[in-house]
Amino acid sequence: MPIKNGKQYIERIDRQRLQLWHNGERVKGPLSEHPAFRGLIRTQAAMYEMQCEASRKEDMSYASPATGERVGLSFLPPVNAEDLIRRRRMSEIWANYHHGFLGRSPDYMNTALMSFYTAAPVLEKASTEHAQNLRNYYEYCRDHDITLSHAFVQPMASKWSGPADAEESLAAKVIETRPEGLVVSGAFLMATQGPTCEEILVLPTPTFMMGDGQVNPSAFAFAVPNDLEGITFICRESHAHDSSYDHPLSSRYEEMDTMVIFDRVLIPHERVFFVGEERLYDQLFQEGHFHAYAGHHIITRYIAKIKFLLGLLQALAEEQNADTENSFVGQIVKVMAMLENLKALRLTAEIGGTITEFGHYVPALAPLTAAGIQFPDLHEEVLRMIRSISASQLIMNPFEADFNTENQSSLEVYLQGLSSPAKDRIVLFRLAWELGGGAFGGRQNQFERFFFGNGKTIANRMYGCCEGLEEYKSRVYRLIGRSE
Amino acid sequence: MPIKNGKQYIERIDRQRLQLWHNGERVKGPLSEHPAFRGLIRTQAAMYEMQCEASRKEDMSYASPATGERVGLSFLPPVNAEDLIRRRRMSEIWANYHHGFLGRSPDYMNTALMSFYTAAPVLEKASTEHAQNLRNYYEYCRDHDITLSHAFVQPMASKWSGPADAEESLAAKVIETRPEGLVVSGAFLMATQGPTCEEILVLPTPTFMMGDGQVNPSAFAFAVPNDLEGITFICRESHAHDSSYDHPLSSRYEEMDTMVIFDRVLIPHERVFFVGEERLYDQLFQEGHFHAYAGHHIITRYIAKIKFLLGLLQALAEEQNADTENSFVGQIVKVMAMLENLKALRLTAEIGGTITEFGHYVPALAPLTAAGIQFPDLHEEVLRMIRSISASQLIMNPFEADFNTENQSSLEVYLQGLSSPAKDRIVLFRLAWELGGGAFGGRQNQFERFFFGNGKTIANRMYGCCEGLEEYKSRVYRLIGRSE
Amino acid sequence: MPIKNGKQYIERIDRQRLQLWHNGERVKGPLSEHPAFRGLIRTQAAMYEMQCEASRKEDMSYASPATGERVGLSFLPPVNAEDLIRRRRMSEIWANYHHGFLGRSPDYMNTALMSFYTAAPVLEKASTEHAQNLRNYYEYCRDHDITLSHAFVQPMASKWSGPADAEESLAAKVIETRPEGLVVSGAFLMATQGPTCEEILVLPTPTFMMGDGQVNPSAFAFAVPNDLEGITFICRESHAHDSSYDHPLSSRYEEMDTMVIFDRVLIPHERVFFVGEERLYDQLFQEGHFHAYAGHHIITRYIAKIKFLLGLLQALAEEQNADTENSFVGQIVKVMAMLENLKALRLTAEIGGTITEFGHYVPALAPLTAAGIQFPDLHEEVLRMIRSISASQLIMNPFEADFNTENQSSLEVYLQGLSSPAKDRIVLFRLAWELGGGAFGGRQNQFERFFFGNGKTIANRMYGCCEGLEEYKSRVYRLIGRSE
Amino acid sequence: MPIKNGKQYIERIDRQRLQLWHNGERVKGPLSEHPAFRGLIRTQAAMYEMQCEASRKEDMSYASPATGERVGLSFLPPVNAEDLIRRRRMSEIWANYHHGFLGRSPDYMNTALMSFYTAAPVLEKASTEHAQNLRNYYEYCRDHDITLSHAFVQPMASKWSGPADAEESLAAKVIETRPEGLVVSGAFLMATQGPTCEEILVLPTPTFMMGDGQVNPSAFAFAVPNDLEGITFICRESHAHDSSYDHPLSSRYEEMDTMVIFDRVLIPHERVFFVGEERLYDQLFQEGHFHAYAGHHIITRYIAKIKFLLGLLQALAEEQNADTENSFVGQIVKVMAMLENLKALRLTAEIGGTITEFGHYVPALAPLTAAGIQFPDLHEEVLRMIRSISASQLIMNPFEADFNTENQSSLEVYLQGLSSPAKDRIVLFRLAWELGGGAFGGRQNQFERFFFGNGKTIANRMYGCCEGLEEYKSRVYRLIGRSE
Repeated sequence: MPIKNGKQYIERIDRQRLQLWHNGERVKGPLSEHPAFRGLIRTQAAMYEMQCEASRKEDMSYASPATGERVGLSFLPPVNAEDLIRRRRMSEIWANYHHGFLGRSPDYMNTALMSFYTAAPVLEKASTEHAQNLRNYYEYCRDHDITLSHAFVQPMASKWSGPADAEESLAAKVIETRPEGLVVSGAFLMATQGPTCEEILVLPTPTFMMGDGQVNPSAFAFAVPNDLEGITFICRESHAHDSSYDHPLSSRYEEMDTMVIFDRVLIPHERVFFVGEERLYDQLFQEGHFHAYAGHHIITRYIAKIKFLLGLLQALAEEQNADTENSFVGQIVKVMAMLENLKALRLTAEIGGTITEFGHYVPALAPLTAAGIQFPDLHEEVLRMIRSISASQLIMNPFEADFNTENQSSLEVYLQGLSSPAKDRIVLFRLAWELGGGAFGGRQNQFERFFFGNGKTIANRMYGCCEGLEEYKSRVYRLIGRSE
Repeated sequence: MPIKNGKQYIERIDRQRLQLWHNGERVKGPLSEHPAFRGLIRTQAAMYEMQCEASRKEDMSYASPATGERVGLSFLPPVNAEDLIRRRRMSEIWANYHHGFLGRSPDYMNTALMSFYTAAPVLEKASTEHAQNLRNYYEYCRDHDITLSHAFVQPMASKWSGPADAEESLAAKVIETRPEGLVVSGAFLMATQGPTCEEILVLPTPTFMMGDGQVNPSAFAFAVPNDLEGITFICRESHAHDSSYDHPLSSRYEEMDTMVIFDRVLIPHERVFFVGEERLYDQLFQEGHFHAYAGHHIITRYIAKIKFLLGLLQALAEEQNADTENSFVGQIVKVMAMLENLKALRLTAEIGGTITEFGHYVPALAPLTAAGIQFPDLHEEVLRMIRSISASQLIMNPFEADFNTENQSSLEVYLQGLSSPAKDRIVLFRLAWELGGGAFGGRQNQFERFFFGNGKTIANRMYGCCEGLEEYKSRVYRLIGRSE
Repeated sequence: MPIKNGKQYIERIDRQRLQLWHNGERVKGPLSEHPAFRGLIRTQAAMYEMQCEASRKEDMSYASPATGERVGLSFLPPVNAEDLIRRRRMSEIWANYHHGFLGRSPDYMNTALMSFYTAAPVLEKASTEHAQNLRNYYEYCRDHDITLSHAFVQPMASKWSGPADAEESLAAKVIETRPEGLVVSGAFLMATQGPTCEEILVLPTPTFMMGDGQVNPSAFAFAVPNDLEGITFICRESHAHDSSYDHPLSSRYEEMDTMVIFDRVLIPHERVFFVGEERLYDQLFQEGHFHAYAGHHIITRYIAKIKFLLGLLQALAEEQNADTENSFVGQIVKVMAMLENLKALRLTAEIGGTITEFGHYVPALAPLTAAGIQFPDLHEEVLRMIRSISASQLIMNPFEADFNTENQSSLEVYLQGLSSPAKDRIVLFRLAWELGGGAFGGRQNQFERFFFGNGKTIANRMYGCCEGLEEYKSRVYRLIGRSE
Repeated sequence: MPIKNGKQYIERIDRQRLQLWHNGERVKGPLSEHPAFRGLIRTQAAMYEMQCEASRKEDMSYASPATGERVGLSFLPPVNAEDLIRRRRMSEIWANYHHGFLGRSPDYMNTALMSFYTAAPVLEKASTEHAQNLRNYYEYCRDHDITLSHAFVQPMASKWSGPADAEESLAAKVIETRPEGLVVSGAFLMATQGPTCEEILVLPTPTFMMGDGQVNPSAFAFAVPNDLEGITFICRESHAHDSSYDHPLSSRYEEMDTMVIFDRVLIPHERVFFVGEERLYDQLFQEGHFHAYAGHHIITRYIAKIKFLLGLLQALAEEQNADTENSFVGQIVKVMAMLENLKALRLTAEIGGTITEFGHYVPALAPLTAAGIQFPDLHEEVLRMIRSISASQLIMNPFEADFNTENQSSLEVYLQGLSSPAKDRIVLFRLAWELGGGAFGGRQNQFERFFFGNGKTIANRMYGCCEGLEEYKSRVYRLIGRSE
């Protein structure tokens, strides 16, 4: 089973028998025909198709060390800068296809899994068996091109409900250990793309620490198929639409977010990566260099998105006859400058990486963290600029269907642009609306803002990255003649 | 026909035979049952009902000088500060009901019509008949409690298409004068609430001026019933929903914006207020003190909205256990300060008004313009704060229907708040989503931003209001010993 | 001894024998001739002169209830809105003279003393004698027109150095009680205008509370002449200059800030207002409505300052030929809007006041607090605008003396403006520099920012002012059907 | 004459006989003893000394192709990336010494001259002699280590005073051509460091263009010794001080800005680089890749400055016991992120350069322009942060001399920090004051803001750098199915 194509992706998704709910109803029938999912599935099928095209095979896949078949490049554990750059080129192809709107493009979780895989040695101390489970699972996913989602974050109530081993604790936990596996109950927020993936990696952020030597029932990691008994996905409101004219973005890129409930789910032992040892969570992230690898994946998505947004700003300004106004130029150049930043930060991370003790090449963390700290503000600012340029034109746009009625000629006359037919003009502002005013853009904005945690978490991560701070302080101290 | 009640409002709206289109389909059947309109109609029916309640009659109506019957206070031309404050109290009752989300609450157009009515004398020079038409129309609306919309703005193409009298001009114009009336063609953007009103006031902003003494075919003003032959309303995408749990705001306050097309519509002469004289447009606005009266209406809406938003911010912060954090307090107090500003500006405008040459009392313009220039930024900032406080909780919320499934107990357990049941917690964040992320909030934000024109227009209006500037400059000159 | 004139002010200041240090040197000789103080003293002398002018007597003074002589209106305890407005008119005359640059214009401390005086009853419980001391001292200052400074804030080290009664505490404290008075040691930051006043009111903010019934040696209030033995004033760097051309502002309005050290100073008992009871500090501020009265004084200063700054922005823009540019208009109108806010907030505070249990009329606090929370940002923003408009012209300006050299004609030719002679152009930019780039503006900006405490303190004060918050929250709760 | 040392620098500066005026007085005597200049001269002497140290020779100089002697690396025309990086390492040594506070560190003008030198071929078309003059002058400066200033910008009056060849034009121009040279009159703003250099490069920005084939008397470029007859330097107000305790920055880094007046100055022909041909100005900048080379120099200065400012922010926060507060961390990480940006942009520019037709290696322009567009905002923001952290401590600081008086022990007790003696604490805040409040920081801020021109100029330069814009727009067009 090498890399899969679009058809295979759809077949596998449709074959699942999920406990999936949207607006109080159980979702039945093939997912690829359901209005909330079909647009995204079509987009991702096209992406999987791309990797099978002969002309792109070299750029998007490599030979599996296990089977020799072509497997996705995003699974490749890099051992030098060239590998890292190959990985990036692969991601660029997909990101330029979805213009950065897919926060959970499949290569994201491939990258995450690869990063944990490189840290498998840290699991050895606790259990060689678990370490091997992780390696096996990574190979399984790589060689079968499994589309994966993940569940890290638990409901806030789990933080307030008492220590992990207390009866009243709402944190996810192992409630029983059986010969066939662990029995787990709990709930997770925000498995983005849960239903449009095949399996789910569960790695809950610890809420309570119990201390050394204690068995923490809430500390574990595993991965299972989505349709295992006892797993339920509950959707937020769908923002998907069907018409690519009326909704150029949400008809293609709407990734569903789901809450996942585990109700006494039996996890086979061979799918467990650790259990009971609460420190292994941090060690997997730390030694797997998750933030560096994920950051390297994401910065390429940022760049693709900014390029698209720059193009949109320019198109809107031309359409409004405002592209030479000082106020427009003064705004768009800030976005251009940020694009230069991101390209430069990526390059710096790529060529400034280091080799880990396990022999992998890790991109420099500080430039990537800097990207992550700056992008959300830029994104929000660009949405504001879209609104500002579009003015009332953001709002007052008919549908494509309106051009097929007796009103057609009126619309074509009155809504024409300076040099564009009405339909070309309107579709541009419908796109602007989806980003600057509509639910699709609202969710994108919040996703970007909280992708890597809340503001405090991100700030502390950056603060920890600034290695020179003491030295810089001593420059000041030396100048003022103060001993340190 | 005195003030109408809710039932009468619905009957009149349902009785209309509009040419109304949404998403390529002609809207048929009673509007009060159509999903895009019924929520708003129900809200406005409740508002009309309020004004008929015995306990509120005194506060919301007065005796018509013509009929002696109770008519809406928003029609009252104020002759002193007390009148102005009575008008405001009336508006406050409605605004506190719709929390400022109705930008086109019926009292807005009542106020606009009243303001033009007070300027009827400026029409006398051109035509005593037209002046009388305006007076008659005002009295008709007042005494029949007509719900009015308006059309001012034309498509951008009309600005680019050549002078008003050229063949190729796309500006709305009188194309024929007949014994029964004027024949008018043209298109107007953004008749907000067009379909949920009874009549429409048409007063196009001049795009080309032809100069003194010329008859400008694009200069005119009139008002007609919505369902006159040749008038077509085309809707933007509806953001309305039905469930007040899932969509607390758009189920109640979604005002449709429509494009209105006039295709050879015959306007009866008695409904024409001026024609051909391009300067009368400005004079009606100027001498009718439109911006002062409208500004006085709107500032009350601003205040009601900020109060609701302050309440929401506090509720969200408490729900997130963040209401005592410095970063929250530091943010919310800016909104509190702006509320103080707005209350103070309104008071200042009310007690600092002047009497016009026609004997009416006009609120001070500068404080109201100052409110208009500041509110859009504040509004956008509050939406940002809502997003910031809510974090991922803005996104991941199930529907009310999900609480009626086999998942109910899981949702109630896992989504409970510190001191609130899950359903109470979730509905609050659904409201937050509608404002901070969803289409309802996106449209509200754009509406507030461009309510009074684009940034340049508004800035120039404020600049023109600052009467002391020369005097302040001379303070500087005197200090530095420079002659002026 | 009624209101004093300029000459009397100078005589009294020069007569003092201060322990005053600047840059390691004891300041000797008449202060009115010292370069660091003479500019300010001249300005304040002119202000005292104004209040004695026949034409202004009515507006600036009233008959002392004790002596019948004219005393300063800023001492008047208001008992109704008219009194408050009289007080404000008085302040306006001085503020329009110093354009808001004097943060410690003498009427500020007169107002502060008046406010504490109105709270004298709260001291009764502890000591009728102390209460009477405060009343006597107020009358003494009023009837002798004493120029007063104050010391509230202690060095940070005092907060870190242990509880008030500990040996190692650095907080100011009573170290001995003698028959002739209390012996006090300690240090205070930021007695602005200390040396250019006659007496100093000492009312240290408590750093450690000891709890009910305990005698707190750091809790006290008193007022003494500046040149009492053991009092030392240490200056920060002076920013004063002599030439009103080269330094239009710092030659007139530079208020010195001083650190004041009390080294075993004997405070006569009749000048003590309370001692030992730590709660009386808060009660004096609370029951004296200090923040309301001071806020009412300051908002008039804010308004005078904004007017001057608006004039300056306009003058600079005209000089740079930029006053019709969109970017300029877009900026200055925000300042204009803020001026409208402040005027409105003041009016609202004045007419919305309340009568205290002791029969005084207190302006509404919330509008004044709102002013205080918004002004620092506006001030900083205006300085930024000054820099932005002036560009390199902010920097490259010769001195007046350069116009009296052989280079005169070159300067006059090359530095001329579009319609202004070079000297008129240059002096304007020298003024701009003092605010936008120089130390005078830097200190003004910091003074405005921290006038009423740091950001957290101010935010909490505003948060506490918003009385409607619970009601606003219940609007949200009612809408979503949630019980409170 | 190879690289010079500190002593030689001082000797040469002191030897000049400048027409130099400050505050209406002719500056006489050795400049290195004058209070306005001595601090800077000492700093620069130390810098020149550094380049002669044996241990640094390799890093800071190279062998002159003409003489074989060691000459400054900043004169090296790079022909590959390694050269560029060598140049940068040299600049880093100086920048880390002056912490980025010297905007006109001598390597800046060396770089500028080198860039023009590489464009000498473009002068050939007009005059081979002039082209050779430029080459000769470059070699002269390189081999004699001449310290150079420059004059580009003319007074605004020159723009308003009519076309270049009109009588009334105030633009600098050639008023006579003599056998010995050109006679030039005119005035230039902002020759930073004019008096502390040896020669001045004059290259006026054209104000009026006369069109092809016309001889434009205002178009020229030349370089001359500072003390040529007819050249007068007029200083702005000096912000220099002597005590490195009281004024840690202005005692070292105050670069004087001067207005330079040319009054019938005779320019020897061999020092003229072009004359009459107005297009050569742009061509020299364009083909010399001035903005790329200067940008590459400056980004190193930016980086050194940010490092110092980061150290300062951290030191201040620790001193205020605030370094773990969320609000501080949230602020400083933005500066850290910008430091990452700048380092990455520099690297990208260095390795992404191109070879010109004349064989030189030019760094990539877009990343450097992006740095230039972002740094001014960051700089202003850091000054704001300094003020915010320091609070009233920014203001109330005694002088070093105050620690040598009878007040010493009081100061040491009351002004001590948590873990720092009073003198160490105070000097830190004096440094903070110089940047956040004082004239030194005010001038630095304005210098950074307008270094590369006003906002519009810079924005347009960046807009012109964004080569992908059309392609990004076509991504949008393709998505919405619109032809381009």
